[in-house]
Amino acid sequence: MTKTIDLNADLGESFGHYSIGDDAALLGIVTSANVACGFHGGDPQVMAKTFALAHENNVAVGAHPGFPDLWGFGRRPLPMTPLEIERIVAYQLGAACAMATYSGHAITYLKAHGALANLTEHDPVIAQAVLNGVYAVEPALPVVAIAHSALERLGKDRGMTIRSEIFADRGYDEDGHLLPRAQPGAVLHDPQAVAERALRMIHAGAIETLSGRLLATTIDTICVHGDSAKAVTLARHLRNTLEAEGIFVRAPAKQGHAS
Amino acid sequence: MTKTIDLNADLGESFGHYSIGDDAALLGIVTSANVACGFHGGDPQVMAKTFALAHENNVAVGAHPGFPDLWGFGRRPLPMTPLEIERIVAYQLGAACAMATYSGHAITYLKAHGALANLTEHDPVIAQAVLNGVYAVEPALPVVAIAHSALERLGKDRGMTIRSEIFADRGYDEDGHLLPRAQPGAVLHDPQAVAERALRMIHAGAIETLSGRLLATTIDTICVHGDSAKAVTLARHLRNTLEAEGIFVRAPAKQGHAS
Amino acid sequence: MTKTIDLNADLGESFGHYSIGDDAALLGIVTSANVACGFHGGDPQVMAKTFALAHENNVAVGAHPGFPDLWGFGRRPLPMTPLEIERIVAYQLGAACAMATYSGHAITYLKAHGALANLTEHDPVIAQAVLNGVYAVEPALPVVAIAHSALERLGKDRGMTIRSEIFADRGYDEDGHLLPRAQPGAVLHDPQAVAERALRMIHAGAIETLSGRLLATTIDTICVHGDSAKAVTLARHLRNTLEAEGIFVRAPAKQGHAS
Amino acid sequence: MTKTIDLNADLGESFGHYSIGDDAALLGIVTSANVACGFHGGDPQVMAKTFALAHENNVAVGAHPGFPDLWGFGRRPLPMTPLEIERIVAYQLGAACAMATYSGHAITYLKAHGALANLTEHDPVIAQAVLNGVYAVEPALPVVAIAHSALERLGKDRGMTIRSEIFADRGYDEDGHLLPRAQPGAVLHDPQAVAERALRMIHAGAIETLSGRLLATTIDTICVHGDSAKAVTLARHLRNTLEAEGIFVRAPAKQGHAS
Repeated sequence: MTKTIDLNADLGESFGHYSIGDDAALLGIVTSANVACGFHGGDPQVMAKTFALAHENNVAVGAHPGFPDLWGFGRRPLPMTPLEIERIVAYQLGAACAMATYSGHAITYLKAHGALANLTEHDPVIAQAVLNGVYAVEPALPVVAIAHSALERLGKDRGMTIRSEIFADRGYDEDGHLLPRAQPGAVLHDPQAVAERALRMIHAGAIETLSGRLLATTIDTICVHGDSAKAVTLARHLRNTLEAEGIFVRAPAKQGHAS
Repeated sequence: MTKTIDLNADLGESFGHYSIGDDAALLGIVTSANVACGFHGGDPQVMAKTFALAHENNVAVGAHPGFPDLWGFGRRPLPMTPLEIERIVAYQLGAACAMATYSGHAITYLKAHGALANLTEHDPVIAQAVLNGVYAVEPALPVVAIAHSALERLGKDRGMTIRSEIFADRGYDEDGHLLPRAQPGAVLHDPQAVAERALRMIHAGAIETLSGRLLATTIDTICVHGDSAKAVTLARHLRNTLEAEGIFVRAPAKQGHAS
Repeated sequence: MTKTIDLNADLGESFGHYSIGDDAALLGIVTSANVACGFHGGDPQVMAKTFALAHENNVAVGAHPGFPDLWGFGRRPLPMTPLEIERIVAYQLGAACAMATYSGHAITYLKAHGALANLTEHDPVIAQAVLNGVYAVEPALPVVAIAHSALERLGKDRGMTIRSEIFADRGYDEDGHLLPRAQPGAVLHDPQAVAERALRMIHAGAIETLSGRLLATTIDTICVHGDSAKAVTLARHLRNTLEAEGIFVRAPAKQGHAS
Repeated sequence: MTKTIDLNADLGESFGHYSIGDDAALLGIVTSANVACGFHGGDPQVMAKTFALAHENNVAVGAHPGFPDLWGFGRRPLPMTPLEIERIVAYQLGAACAMATYSGHAITYLKAHGALANLTEHDPVIAQAVLNGVYAVEPALPVVAIAHSALERLGKDRGMTIRSEIFADRGYDEDGHLLPRAQPGAVLHDPQAVAERALRMIHAGAIETLSGRLLATTIDTICVHGDSAKAVTLARHLRNTLEAEGIFVRAPAKQGHAS
């Protein structure tokens, strides 16, 4: 049987006159674009253009809600209540759905951004809040969750469609969790090593920890970065390697969801 | 035949710790609530609460998009391009639909706020931009338009559902347009006079100008204000008077639209 | 010897069309107004009006910097670095000095707002950051610090002018620290009890804990609230009681600082 | 007698994670940096770094206030009242003075940004508002004004220190006003032609119009841009040319002002 994998990256994070990321390059590489919704980056103009460009490139699009923190780019864990979090998720999901429709495209998944996503790895209350926000608006919408996260477990428990995600360029500890960025081995830079590790993980259906241990996991999508020329090179090499090895790189089929 | 009329007012304009308007009182009077979408007022928390409260009170809800101008409360005409305007309308419409769904309610119309609405009275380019934003997302969604406005005419021309609106407490010039607020007679304060004039307009199917001239027009909804105790009193007296005279006060039936 | 005491309250926290607090009433009661600087509340218009009104009422004014968080009104501890904090303090202090000068008044002290102030009670790194921000811009400017706080201790250690503050309507634990708002006894509501306790604390030169224990402390200023009619009544009764008992209520003399 | 000229450019316009402009390159070319104050660009972090870097490079710094419009980068003329404008100018000036002091530098002039500056060319009410904002805070602070503008004339009329500015890469109409960007000849691209024209203008003490006509004017400073590699090249060539021709390129001496 042919294995298939999705490649996702954050896009549409520019704001007004401020440009960030190489969206054009990434849209030639990834199969799913996580599009910022105006809270941590993006604005209605940027969203409209990003969805249109993704549509032209036949790239699937997901709502990518973050904390309301343009200054911090959504990378700071704001002290918001669970109720506030489910509401900012619902709000941004609605805005993203409308802008995708506006641009002739359609949102087919949701992935939380930055600090909000990081909190869902270990904090079940925040994870549940994100799920509540999605469920109240689009209960059948697939949610991307970090493999082995609270979000993944809780989403499956309540019968929602969860897509498990690994990171191409991030190291894992022995429990299968992302190493904090400050630790040695937390961020991988060599495109060849990154691609080879990703291949091993896909073939094994497992996370590979720093020590080489394999922890069985579902892998639906691989996250790549695109905020530097180097990151784009790494992403491109990863895709080329996967395809050369017979992995079919494409977005998941649109089954099991409402809109 | 019994005449029916809708009463609408702006609600949900509070922001974080800042409260504005007497939403609780208004929800006992009006039949349609124009709910701010987070750009000129409102936030995801306030929206969730407002939609839930409107649902409890059996009051219909509309998306009420405005310029991105919290400081100016959406009352300043920001120099945005038509394309930007259609996109901020689409964005806010999507956010409002999601938050209404989140709260167990449903958006059944859209009405532009403040300076944006004022521009649609005379500027066909801005009016078309607002229509484009709605049409791209929810083509069958009714749009509230100032009676005799560019928005009303253009919306009908393209076959969209338009609800024509008059203002309970605003004077009209001899062409049927709203008098600028600075002019004498622009704002009416006497609840009894306001209610009687509204009755005359509904019975005549016409706008009554300052001189008493009647200009035939469709009247689907009457806008009332609620930002002061006096305004609430005026709105309540208007509703009581209309009902005492046998006018049926209720929101339009949900016919002819998609969601 | 006559005892003198300063009464301070937060003012100028309105934003655009959003009004909050009863500034006019408070300016007839307090001797020092902590004026919001546009980050958690306030804007250049509100600041100009507040400084002018304070000047008319012969009330001293202080810069009242907070976290950049209008949505949360500065009451959420944002995850900012110490360097970021000293810079947002310096920025807001400069803006406040300019706006006070613009309105014919002059800033004579600084007091941190909300969550930022709360952090300076126990966190020496944040406390030092606030002091750094003031020191770099106006080294001789007095800083209001919660009595028994890290800010008070560190400010005195580096030779800055510190004004120690107690809270009229807040309970203290046995170590002299503010009780968390959720705990019983944390917030006092009875105007008479509040005024009598304040008198006892001033006469004793001590904080009175929940059990009635007295902990010696400098008391330069008493913080009162003004965000409700009840709070204004409490503040007025406090002032009247202090004056009836021969305490001289006035702002500290402008000695020992630069501008 | 040796002629001297100042070269100024906009700097410090980055925001949070968003970078814009090549500040490092420009600080090796210009003699005065117009530093954004957090309303249209910049934030306290960016300001602190920019002032420190300018100080290291021995480049003078000016406050560069703009409309409160991060989304529009201060390039949209917001509908603000004259009173609001003088207050946003005063606020930003105060913040800039504090941040410069914080970084060991000192503000020695003010120049309005973008749409606000453009309005001061022809609109005497806006021009007076900008002057009022400066005058109320730092009456002796030099203000940079477009040559032949309302701002220049009104500032001189009230005895303020005005520095007249021409634009290196912008064409002038026959009345000495800047050509709208859409018109042919409005923007000059050839570094050699730009440098030669600037030389002619400095030597003649005159603006050179599109037709080659010379209109006598004071020229204290030349504005260059730095938002692209091409713009930096043009600025560098201009400076090299001026110096090769014996023009002394330096910031004005700090005479005649208060701080």
